Amino acid sequence: MTDTPKLAGPSVRAVPEGDDRLRLMCPDCGYVAYENPKIVVGSVALLDDRILLCRRAIEPRKGYWTLPAGYLELGESAEQGALREAWEEARARLELEGLLAVFSIVRISQIQLIYRARLTSPSIAPGPESADVGLFAWDEIPWDDIAFPSVHWSLNRHREIGDAPLGNPGTNPESDTPGL
Amino acid sequence: MTDTPKLAGPSVRAVPEGDDRLRLMCPDCGYVAYENPKIVVGSVALLDDRILLCRRAIEPRKGYWTLPAGYLELGESAEQGALREAWEEARARLELEGLLAVFSIVRISQIQLIYRARLTSPSIAPGPESADVGLFAWDEIPWDDIAFPSVHWSLNRHREIGDAPLGNPGTNPESDTPGL
Repeated sequence: MTDTPKLAGPSVRAVPEGDDRLRLMCPDCGYVAYENPKIVVGSVALLDDRILLCRRAIEPRKGYWTLPAGYLELGESAEQGALREAWEEARARLELEGLLAVFSIVRISQIQLIYRARLTSPSIAPGPESADVGLFAWDEIPWDDIAFPSVHWSLNRHREIGDAPLGNPGTNPESDTPGL
Repeated sequence: MTDTPKLAGPSVRAVPEGDDRLRLMCPDCGYVAYENPKIVVGSVALLDDRILLCRRAIEPRKGYWTLPAGYLELGESAEQGALREAWEEARARLELEGLLAVFSIVRISQIQLIYRARLTSPSIAPGPESADVGLFAWDEIPWDDIAFPSVHWSLNRHREIGDAPLGNPGTNPESDTPGL
């Protein structure tokens, strides 16, 4: 017996018994390291009718504008994650109103949960991953410098609903919907 | 040069520069293997007013009843995953109506997306992970043999809404809501 962990050998891609997909497996013991889609949580966060956007200080899409959003962490709820991201990226404190949209970005195996939120204070400032942050009226949004398609989708969904109560969340636009 | 991949050494838990959490890292090159919550997709699937349930043939909670649901796979949309699970577990074909609920099970780092759906055919049969499947009127549901709390939550949410249009999705019950 020793404290040194056994050195891991290379894993292999194989179909476990009873499964129907290639998985990442240990060739010795059959352990399966499942790989699954990741969850992005974020928000369309409003101060009156202005929308909080962050200019990315990091790749991908450095220099472009995005919603405060990022990967959900282990051990947090979707709502906690959306609030954390708004703080990390824009030093903004929010109150969530409900789910505005749920997008499936299958190309990169990502599910995005986008909330509608209100800033509880007008104070904002760039966090470490943002070069700049701002509150934009609809006509002031830097449309040519938006980081990701799903930012457009989220903003469009917000525009559709306006101040009405949130109904069932929006999903991918028809042109970008994986077939069922 | 050789075709043999370099043997991977043990990874370490460390906080990468600019991060604030312990991550699984390669001690040599600094590669970070992020660990993130997993997504479960499922449905409250109805034939008239009866609800499709599956008796689990596998652990955990073997022998208990659950909704057709399971882990979202890489490269599929949330909707595709919910339909696939209904087929895999109950050989059921569904049409999704919208999101009934989004639950955060932080103890096991799981986000559950539960749809309301209609069976497009009354034909159902146990798939490999189910010992039995059935369509249950509300009063026939095997309440004492339900596999997971979130199955109760989903059924309760369905009961609350009834046949009304789906509004914003339900979330964890108050007693089980992680603080914000």
